[in-house]
Amino acid sequence: MSNQQSGASLVPSRRALLAGGAAATLFVPGLAFAVSGDLAAIRKAAEKGYDASVKRIQDWIALPSIAAENRDMDKGCDYMMALARDAGFQHVEKVPTDGHPGVFATLDVGAKRWMGVYFMYDVKQFDPAEWSSPPLEARIVDKPGFGKVIVGRGAVNQKGPQAAFLAALHAIRAAGKTPPVNLVLVCEGEEEIGSPHFRQIVTKPNVLAALKTCEGVVIPAGWQSPSDGGVTVNLGAKGIVEFELVASGAKWGRGPKTDIHSSEKARVDSPAWRLVQALSTLVTPDGNRPAIDNYFEKVRPLTAREKELIALAGRQLSEADAKKALGVERFIDDLPWEKTLERLASQPTVNIEGLVAGYTGPGGKTVLPGRAVAKIDLRLVPNQTAEDSVAKLRAHLDRRGFQDIEINVGGGYDPTETDENSRLIRAELATYKRQGVPTTLYPRLAGSWPGAVFTSAPVSLPAGQFGLGHGSGAHAPNEYYVIESSNPKVEGLVGSTMSYVDFLYEIASAK
Amino acid sequence: MSNQQSGASLVPSRRALLAGGAAATLFVPGLAFAVSGDLAAIRKAAEKGYDASVKRIQDWIALPSIAAENRDMDKGCDYMMALARDAGFQHVEKVPTDGHPGVFATLDVGAKRWMGVYFMYDVKQFDPAEWSSPPLEARIVDKPGFGKVIVGRGAVNQKGPQAAFLAALHAIRAAGKTPPVNLVLVCEGEEEIGSPHFRQIVTKPNVLAALKTCEGVVIPAGWQSPSDGGVTVNLGAKGIVEFELVASGAKWGRGPKTDIHSSEKARVDSPAWRLVQALSTLVTPDGNRPAIDNYFEKVRPLTAREKELIALAGRQLSEADAKKALGVERFIDDLPWEKTLERLASQPTVNIEGLVAGYTGPGGKTVLPGRAVAKIDLRLVPNQTAEDSVAKLRAHLDRRGFQDIEINVGGGYDPTETDENSRLIRAELATYKRQGVPTTLYPRLAGSWPGAVFTSAPVSLPAGQFGLGHGSGAHAPNEYYVIESSNPKVEGLVGSTMSYVDFLYEIASAK
Repeated sequence: MSNQQSGASLVPSRRALLAGGAAATLFVPGLAFAVSGDLAAIRKAAEKGYDASVKRIQDWIALPSIAAENRDMDKGCDYMMALARDAGFQHVEKVPTDGHPGVFATLDVGAKRWMGVYFMYDVKQFDPAEWSSPPLEARIVDKPGFGKVIVGRGAVNQKGPQAAFLAALHAIRAAGKTPPVNLVLVCEGEEEIGSPHFRQIVTKPNVLAALKTCEGVVIPAGWQSPSDGGVTVNLGAKGIVEFELVASGAKWGRGPKTDIHSSEKARVDSPAWRLVQALSTLVTPDGNRPAIDNYFEKVRPLTAREKELIALAGRQLSEADAKKALGVERFIDDLPWEKTLERLASQPTVNIEGLVAGYTGPGGKTVLPGRAVAKIDLRLVPNQTAEDSVAKLRAHLDRRGFQDIEINVGGGYDPTETDENSRLIRAELATYKRQGVPTTLYPRLAGSWPGAVFTSAPVSLPAGQFGLGHGSGAHAPNEYYVIESSNPKVEGLVGSTMSYVDFLYEIASAK
Repeated sequence: MSNQQSGASLVPSRRALLAGGAAATLFVPGLAFAVSGDLAAIRKAAEKGYDASVKRIQDWIALPSIAAENRDMDKGCDYMMALARDAGFQHVEKVPTDGHPGVFATLDVGAKRWMGVYFMYDVKQFDPAEWSSPPLEARIVDKPGFGKVIVGRGAVNQKGPQAAFLAALHAIRAAGKTPPVNLVLVCEGEEEIGSPHFRQIVTKPNVLAALKTCEGVVIPAGWQSPSDGGVTVNLGAKGIVEFELVASGAKWGRGPKTDIHSSEKARVDSPAWRLVQALSTLVTPDGNRPAIDNYFEKVRPLTAREKELIALAGRQLSEADAKKALGVERFIDDLPWEKTLERLASQPTVNIEGLVAGYTGPGGKTVLPGRAVAKIDLRLVPNQTAEDSVAKLRAHLDRRGFQDIEINVGGGYDPTETDENSRLIRAELATYKRQGVPTTLYPRLAGSWPGAVFTSAPVSLPAGQFGLGHGSGAHAPNEYYVIESSNPKVEGLVGSTMSYVDFLYEIASAK
């Protein structure tokens, strides 16, 4: 999930007013007695399978597939296929793309309904020097305030939650039961480089046909708030485009092609100043509103229902906790809490991820750089698209004479939208409610994920995150996933596993 | 010389119209026969001492004193003192400062005149991984088109040229002669961090008293053009201030204190955008003229004589060679050659040395950085000062509401000016002329050096670069200094040594 936000800062903590234990109950209110019995047996099996489930995560982490480095991609794909077979998928197929292959698998038990699941087998790059324990060793560590966690690259993004989903299928089988729904698994190996070929996988005729039978698609998530265990159900996600803006003497035909001595600034043009001047046109002077020409043209305003959900979220979520988690003293324009939630859901953004030019080490060095780079991400809301946004940016720069400034797009997804009344969302909410998990319904995740491939034509399905459990540190050092939680409001690996079991039963029975 | 520009790009190549062999002549026209005889004997001694001179450079390079890293500073100072004693200085004194110590030494032979020499015993940081041979090994390498060179940190900046100066004293003594002038040596160990305590050294009462007796101060230089061996005599140098401009959530009280997820841009302020907006006010939209309020207030326009010198330089120097050396296709505003030389000499600048914010690795990372840094240098012309320029920048930023943006000054020097009619400059020109070296007299070096400490009160002396020989790569990997030149127009170590001998004789006899 390169562009989702996971862990504490994604799911704002909420006031305790929605508190409720997420601990296991053998007899689940709101489900038929027979189903309750099934769930109890499956939980026992999940507990029995705990060691195997932990080992499944650890073994998976030990094999890092990194598309950006072309590292162990085929191995990673084969491993994913083996995991799917092992979990009971009868048809498991490698799907070649113009990039790295994906996986398509089905588990058909003759149930009435089909459910889609999205996996990725790749992980983000890492630098072992930054880690407290080797990132591929997947060590089990006591993390104060959290419990026992697995530390490793991919722990929460996405191997831990995905393994918990697979553990749910193992537990169902071990309990002598049959999954209550049929499953379609689609998996890619290029999520961390922006899913450039994922559409090729889902539109392969047999994959598309299978997906079209599904109620929706979930991506497993371990995003419970570490304080009260709360989760947010998002009715969609912002889109994103990531790119580098590059000003260079080579393209400009002015200024140096390499770094030269800075005394030459008196007579030589500076690509770094050119970049600064171009950047300064992209946002309002406060840096808070995109100023790219026509950028808001396709932006759909919030609906009355979306505003209502935001108002509700404002009462459920804690401003103080959010500020603390973000390390922020005040929001843009000192906006009140609800307005910040509104902006988070509704506003497209132009963000500087990074700046790199010339000398970047300690102190100074008297150079005039030949090249300057701004790493930018645009967050998109309906009905913006990644392609149109880049075209508008190109036109904006060209109109101001910055034709030479390159826009090197790394990847992007369109925004997604999923109907609140879809069976997927209703089942998610019902499952969380039954578990007593504080739940906030929110119009739009401010982060991004490749879900637009599912929500847009031709797949056109509801899609979103689902799952209990907690982890954090995606893309960062010391990424972790909780396997034994010391906080009764937050689930460990067994509770996470059971959240998927419950959800599949809910999907099977929901009206 | 942290801010001078050395080597090819500093000394623009010139047309061959001023060509003339720089090879040694035993009988030097323009000098008394007796002196010519002395010089011939000294040259023989210099040739005989070649191996020892090479070893002196190599041994010195093996001991890197790096103020920024507090590496071997006392050792380096002691080593410098031993080198001075070894070269014949009778009084050699360590001069403590609030930072690292300097060295003051005198060589008094009872001559009529005194001459000052400026040394530094520190070198710039280095990363051995970037070098073709170990930077402290000072390997002798065949460099095509140049001859035999010593490759090592400090080779040209400043140990090679300084060792050549010391070799001159060794050669004079070995030839049984006495230096024609008395010498004052002042040396610091903090040049590469901006000479923060050098003024304490030169204003120590006995040091100041000794300096006040001098004709001027030279810094040894190995800046012959690698094509035609030409040199430029600069009648001063621009000043410089180096600093970091830092925008941060911590100081601003807005935005994050660390890097947070970029989806939060919708409601969280961005220090990176703030830096961009502040930067964009510092120069005109083309990036080529400072726009700091009142920045030109103290700028003295070029004099008629300075314009005349620039016009002459324009005819002597080759535009094509300069563009090639810089890797630049066109200058600012497509200015004609002479105008670029005028700007180089006369225009203060605001240059971006580097930009650093957030994620700087390959590809992208969805963060909203808590801190953004621009590394800036200002080049100053008479009568600007470093202190006043920083004060003007502070006022400029404050006036625009950027009070939170930090200006972290790393170091700086005021501009220097030296009278064309001083004995120092006349002696330099006469020495070069006698050697047949193409010489360009130029109003002002566009680079910077700590010479303002000499040219301003209370020392108030002429000061500038002098020396034949060639090297390049100061501050860069594979820094080198030519010891045996394959180009007859460029001097090797013996020729460089003799240029100092000649110069001292010239100072002694010049009217």
